[in-house]
Amino acid sequence: MEFRYTLEDVKSLLPEGTRSAGACGSGVFSGMAPLEAAGPEDISFLNKAANRARLEKSGAGIVLLPEGCEVLPKPGQVYFWLPNPSLGLALIAEEVERKALPRPPGGVHPSAVVDALARVDSSAHIGPLCVIEAGAVVEADAIIGAQCFIGKGAHIGRNTRLFPQVTIAHECVVGADCLLHSGVRIGGDGFGYESGKEGHRKVPQIGRVVLEDRVEIGSNSTIDRARLTETRIGTGTKIDNLVQIGHNCVVGRHCLLCSGVGIAGSAKLGDFVTLAGQAGISGHIEIGSFSQVGGQAGLGKSLPPKSLVTGTPARAFTEQRRLEGMVRRLPELFQRFRDLENRLPKDISAK
Amino acid sequence: MEFRYTLEDVKSLLPEGTRSAGACGSGVFSGMAPLEAAGPEDISFLNKAANRARLEKSGAGIVLLPEGCEVLPKPGQVYFWLPNPSLGLALIAEEVERKALPRPPGGVHPSAVVDALARVDSSAHIGPLCVIEAGAVVEADAIIGAQCFIGKGAHIGRNTRLFPQVTIAHECVVGADCLLHSGVRIGGDGFGYESGKEGHRKVPQIGRVVLEDRVEIGSNSTIDRARLTETRIGTGTKIDNLVQIGHNCVVGRHCLLCSGVGIAGSAKLGDFVTLAGQAGISGHIEIGSFSQVGGQAGLGKSLPPKSLVTGTPARAFTEQRRLEGMVRRLPELFQRFRDLENRLPKDISAK
Amino acid sequence: MEFRYTLEDVKSLLPEGTRSAGACGSGVFSGMAPLEAAGPEDISFLNKAANRARLEKSGAGIVLLPEGCEVLPKPGQVYFWLPNPSLGLALIAEEVERKALPRPPGGVHPSAVVDALARVDSSAHIGPLCVIEAGAVVEADAIIGAQCFIGKGAHIGRNTRLFPQVTIAHECVVGADCLLHSGVRIGGDGFGYESGKEGHRKVPQIGRVVLEDRVEIGSNSTIDRARLTETRIGTGTKIDNLVQIGHNCVVGRHCLLCSGVGIAGSAKLGDFVTLAGQAGISGHIEIGSFSQVGGQAGLGKSLPPKSLVTGTPARAFTEQRRLEGMVRRLPELFQRFRDLENRLPKDISAK
Repeated sequence: MEFRYTLEDVKSLLPEGTRSAGACGSGVFSGMAPLEAAGPEDISFLNKAANRARLEKSGAGIVLLPEGCEVLPKPGQVYFWLPNPSLGLALIAEEVERKALPRPPGGVHPSAVVDALARVDSSAHIGPLCVIEAGAVVEADAIIGAQCFIGKGAHIGRNTRLFPQVTIAHECVVGADCLLHSGVRIGGDGFGYESGKEGHRKVPQIGRVVLEDRVEIGSNSTIDRARLTETRIGTGTKIDNLVQIGHNCVVGRHCLLCSGVGIAGSAKLGDFVTLAGQAGISGHIEIGSFSQVGGQAGLGKSLPPKSLVTGTPARAFTEQRRLEGMVRRLPELFQRFRDLENRLPKDISAK
Repeated sequence: MEFRYTLEDVKSLLPEGTRSAGACGSGVFSGMAPLEAAGPEDISFLNKAANRARLEKSGAGIVLLPEGCEVLPKPGQVYFWLPNPSLGLALIAEEVERKALPRPPGGVHPSAVVDALARVDSSAHIGPLCVIEAGAVVEADAIIGAQCFIGKGAHIGRNTRLFPQVTIAHECVVGADCLLHSGVRIGGDGFGYESGKEGHRKVPQIGRVVLEDRVEIGSNSTIDRARLTETRIGTGTKIDNLVQIGHNCVVGRHCLLCSGVGIAGSAKLGDFVTLAGQAGISGHIEIGSFSQVGGQAGLGKSLPPKSLVTGTPARAFTEQRRLEGMVRRLPELFQRFRDLENRLPKDISAK
Repeated sequence: MEFRYTLEDVKSLLPEGTRSAGACGSGVFSGMAPLEAAGPEDISFLNKAANRARLEKSGAGIVLLPEGCEVLPKPGQVYFWLPNPSLGLALIAEEVERKALPRPPGGVHPSAVVDALARVDSSAHIGPLCVIEAGAVVEADAIIGAQCFIGKGAHIGRNTRLFPQVTIAHECVVGADCLLHSGVRIGGDGFGYESGKEGHRKVPQIGRVVLEDRVEIGSNSTIDRARLTETRIGTGTKIDNLVQIGHNCVVGRHCLLCSGVGIAGSAKLGDFVTLAGQAGISGHIEIGSFSQVGGQAGLGKSLPPKSLVTGTPARAFTEQRRLEGMVRRLPELFQRFRDLENRLPKDISAK
């Protein structure tokens, strides 16, 4: 995204009183880049003082450094010291993004198909070719991207943004300040059947999905409606791309669900649970708060809070690593065992 | 979904002659919930007599019980006994759903773009902003949700429902009474290339996809067209969200494919095959009817009918569980082995 | 797809001078099928001379054979010999596809919403109900399928085809001759947060995605924009359905990423890397050119060029196969060990 900031502009975006040193080489800054790739017009950052060697090769015009990392800027460089340099860069980037993608004005694009019985706040933006059905509500300052679908009686909270081509099925609820990326599917039917010899009879899924506030969901992720009541995602939880959450699940607050994760029906997650990429969670189990599940782990049993597990079947990190090490040593064990057998006299015997 | 049923309404939705006991506490029932969460206005169910202890804490107004589970209702509760209580609840839920989501009337929304050479039955409903290309056919009573795409020469069977934003590519066939959720992609090109030192030359995929009748497919699942002939999904097969089925696959009748499953090209599944979540099936193999493949299993070889396998590489359930148990005991085996080595005199030797 | 070719038509589509034998049984050829399913009006092929037994049962009217596979055609059959019969069939199929799906004419469908500040070449085709935002560029001969979204400042190269319902977010770049299937999401935000006790603060993702030329991406795959600079996919790389590529990744030229693959942020792949289905790649690692990663493998460490790994954690193919074999023999090892313990006199002891 394009921007052109002076040193003063940059300074004004950082917390007041941020300490700096060095003399400006470039009059204008127009890019952000990792230290190794950054040039005199780029802003960059170093996250850990321990990695300060990365500074030596960097031609960045501005570098944000962690406090306590006392290094002198090279000629033409300006250094800023902050408690969290990555967050400092984020503050600048937020302004860049705000400028490049200004909030679209309130109003309904003439090509959108909005039912007369939908209620859209006048400050909300409804993009082109959206469909909003009867009884749906879009609250103030919401931004509904192009070609989205909001079904009967669905509810979109204040200041929530849907990127293009999101679908929110009937009666589902999206809280305030949420961010849903393209292709997100909220409220498909849960996968439930009564199975018999003649096949599978569909069990109606008459519940809904509720996303609380500040939930972010990545592209093409899917969350199914509950069979009877609700599938719920807690405030502040962040969900990556291509994640599946089955019907009746309850995900707590501030969880992180990485790409490819699948959670089967009726599972419950506490708060601040992290599921790494492609982890699979069985149905009807509970994961205690602050637990972490490793990438590709297969979890079939409930976990107490603060568990750290990985592997399939999932075990404590330390045990899993130990077992992996032992599997790797199996050839050695087999060999030592053969050696031992060979050393023993054939006629040795117990008793 | 909202409803307000009297006891008589509920009775009329259950099979005739369903036995009941108890006296109605609430005049009206307006919710369904699991036993633990249900109140006097809720309908609930108990699936197994063995779990009858769950009844004690339940305040549900109506409970559907399995026959033979002889428990007296509490004051204000009504109990119904059925062969399959979950199915009984489904009968009521079906009616709730029918009322909340009444079948939309036949006709084409004026915002839809329907080619003059497409043939749409007058009883079919075409939602807003759909695109239907030349030669496509939509049969009677089909419901095409908003913003769907139906390509050249594609065919949608009687009473099939597409939720919003489904794409059916050119020449693909969807049978009768199917249900496709938002984001389903039918008929993308199969992943086929002739590879050489200069790169990968695309092999045209000129076949199609055929879904037989009563197939259900979950949100954002993808089924690729065949290279030459067809990729086929058998009658009554149910597919969950985010499932991938490669080109030329033939999936039998009444299979269950859970979320995250991936089936590589040209694999064949018999009837009533169940693939649990995130299982991966190699290309060109056959899975016999009534087989079950565990979650996250990696199956690289064909299976006879009625196989039960799990793990990567997939093995019989019993063997896999046994091997997992032994891996868990590796630390003990290593220790016992060290002990044994230490117990033996250094100079003992065979012969 | 329908076609009706004479023997002369078929001959004209194969490389000049292709050797043939046999006499035509059918005057017209209207299908392509595998040898076993092919009838007198079908064109088929045999890829390896070693499989020549498959010819015996085949009723195919035309068979393309590998050079050196000297078999006499049956009465009514015509055989052609080519260096690569599969490629030969592809040449015919390409023509079939071209006829069945002729290039749509240049021009913007009247139902599309194209910003006045977008620049669309007059030879490009913009399908119905597309949205193209300000500053976007669509180059000559591009084909944008129905209901696609092209965001602010995005760029679509010459002769690139987007199937229906693809989204290209703001400022992303798609090269020339690319093919993107339905539901592809280019340029969602990367999954990046500053996490603390109060939750997760979004880190703005102000970079972009760049697809170089001749990239193909399957249905519902997702590629996230970079945090600061770019996520890049090299020329000629082919990506299957439901693949996830995280922010800042750099994928080289001519890679093959099979369905279900997930690549975490900032990973780097060389050229001609193959990732089999459902493989998971950790963030910030590098995979050397010409490496192959097996299906469902979990790769957490960088790999030198030409590596062949599989398993979780990923190991060399040969080691992984050996370890899997040893795990399978664990019951035997436990048994032999018990036998040995029992054979030993209880009082034997070292020293």
